[in-house]
Amino acid sequence: MEKAVSENNNLPILKNVLLKTDNNQIRISTTNLDLAISKSILGKIIEEGGITVPFSTLYSIVNNSDSERISLEQDNNTLILKTDNYEAKIQGLNEEEFPIIPKIENSKNYLEIEPAILKNSILKVLSAAQISEIRPEISGILLDFQLTILKLAATDSFRLAEKTLASNQFGANFNRGFKIIIPLKTTQEILRVFKENQSISIFVDSNQILLKTNDLELISRLIDGVYPDYEQIIPKDIETEIQVEREPLINAVKLVSSFSGKNNDIKLKVKDKKILEIYSASQYLGENHYLVPAKVNGPDFKEVAFNWRYLMDGLKALDSEKIIFGLNGENKPAILKSPEDVSYFYILMPIKNT
Amino acid sequence: MEKAVSENNNLPILKNVLLKTDNNQIRISTTNLDLAISKSILGKIIEEGGITVPFSTLYSIVNNSDSERISLEQDNNTLILKTDNYEAKIQGLNEEEFPIIPKIENSKNYLEIEPAILKNSILKVLSAAQISEIRPEISGILLDFQLTILKLAATDSFRLAEKTLASNQFGANFNRGFKIIIPLKTTQEILRVFKENQSISIFVDSNQILLKTNDLELISRLIDGVYPDYEQIIPKDIETEIQVEREPLINAVKLVSSFSGKNNDIKLKVKDKKILEIYSASQYLGENHYLVPAKVNGPDFKEVAFNWRYLMDGLKALDSEKIIFGLNGENKPAILKSPEDVSYFYILMPIKNT
Repeated sequence: MEKAVSENNNLPILKNVLLKTDNNQIRISTTNLDLAISKSILGKIIEEGGITVPFSTLYSIVNNSDSERISLEQDNNTLILKTDNYEAKIQGLNEEEFPIIPKIENSKNYLEIEPAILKNSILKVLSAAQISEIRPEISGILLDFQLTILKLAATDSFRLAEKTLASNQFGANFNRGFKIIIPLKTTQEILRVFKENQSISIFVDSNQILLKTNDLELISRLIDGVYPDYEQIIPKDIETEIQVEREPLINAVKLVSSFSGKNNDIKLKVKDKKILEIYSASQYLGENHYLVPAKVNGPDFKEVAFNWRYLMDGLKALDSEKIIFGLNGENKPAILKSPEDVSYFYILMPIKNT
Repeated sequence: MEKAVSENNNLPILKNVLLKTDNNQIRISTTNLDLAISKSILGKIIEEGGITVPFSTLYSIVNNSDSERISLEQDNNTLILKTDNYEAKIQGLNEEEFPIIPKIENSKNYLEIEPAILKNSILKVLSAAQISEIRPEISGILLDFQLTILKLAATDSFRLAEKTLASNQFGANFNRGFKIIIPLKTTQEILRVFKENQSISIFVDSNQILLKTNDLELISRLIDGVYPDYEQIIPKDIETEIQVEREPLINAVKLVSSFSGKNNDIKLKVKDKKILEIYSASQYLGENHYLVPAKVNGPDFKEVAFNWRYLMDGLKALDSEKIIFGLNGENKPAILKSPEDVSYFYILMPIKNT
């Protein structure tokens, strides 16, 4: 629950967690008005009730207690918490004052997906997204449902990652497609809170998304705006296509980055139709270079510069033993993908030659 | 070596590491003028040489390389580093410009101690020390050699910890005792750099200490000043002595701290000759209390307040199953110790009743 707690001083109740009996279970909820998380846990209900108390106090107690059972009792706006040798009286606020967590309207339509598939897809695109004050529409992950496929995409304008899920990887009960932009923070919470064992149902309306399992609900505002039409920057042709082993390339990039400058630049060159040379130099520190054996398709390649951190993000998002690196001139986007898997690519802009 | 590297802009060579051939070994040294670390590593020497290069560059390369061997070659002020597919030229500075690491004078006199014993003793007192700008003499650990015993002590004036080593726990080749104050940072490096397998020889002179094993040397300035005469604050008598299990007490302190205020205060009371009650209350959050069974020697005890973090430091420095907690009135120092081990105590000042 912790990440949906807010230190909003205008609305101090957002620091609180709502505890409420609910169908023989205890429902725990937090919200920061952008994101709400709610989870049901098992417990023996002696009497129905509900209260909100400061999250940090309750968390500190529960986290430090080694008792197997905890008894919770509501006495007006005080929560009495007892374990074997311990008793706490926590000053709370009336549950009525807690913001209502909104419901999604068209709840008959939903996607159904396994947590592992959703989380793996988010992880493949996540590193390409960044919070942008100027362009809020790219400060999240695009979820583009086209009835038979589901695409996830992210870009910070320097790189772009796209993962496509085929119709056998999710269930859908929708009549028409949708495009929504999920805030970056929400995607990070999705990765954190959903465990592997229950499939997730996804409901959307015009400005919200609800992800739901049997005992867990995560509801978030969506980012308002039109996602950039990124199709146009996907390279149609590839000038020089090289195939290299991924682990040695990661190693080479790490090593060569030792001499890269403030803009994290390292340079690449393809030579003798079989060698990828990676190098960097610094006026103050010196220079270094690494030779990686490669299968080359197309002409040798003189020089192109990349931000090594962005290149590394792409290499890490891939998980195949070998990778394809498509180069397209010193100022044109390059592409990283796996030879076996057409469902994913990572596009990377070079650092402009100055 | 890393922690003895300095980002001193007046003397940029302190960012460098010195590499030097030395009796068929390679000696690596760093210094920040207060602390120097030097280590010999095995290598095949083709030709004698020495050079200094930026620590961070060399570290980045060595840390990211997965090669089994690295070849190092000095070419004037450039270090050429090669592995299988990789080559770096690192711009360095002449070894002559590297500060001379001072030697200790009276090198016939030394203490000899096992790393585990030294490190365990430092750990028992370390948490009671703090860097003090006003009182530099307490910003370190006292090492008080009295020929047949060796004492380590630390205090920040709110608490005091002392560990005494008996003559069978160290070797000594000195004619007379000494008292030195080792800077806190140096003690942290001692904990970090010395491994368990070689005994440490300790040399001292009026303003330096050298700790030395076969392949590792750590040399540090000492703190100039007179260590406070702390004997006077050690309580002679104990009003109420209680014996409790350590783990449940740690647990109780953690739990009760959930309601402690900005000064980290929690309160203790001894009642019914068999219960230690720990409690705290906050105007805004509520209140809580924990009852810990105790063996009590002496009268019941009304109320005393401690900083729970300081109490916890003391409880963690002890390692016995049961502990003795000696209470002495609401404004007088309390003492923590183990029932079995007289070589260690931790003294703790109450928070004054206001």
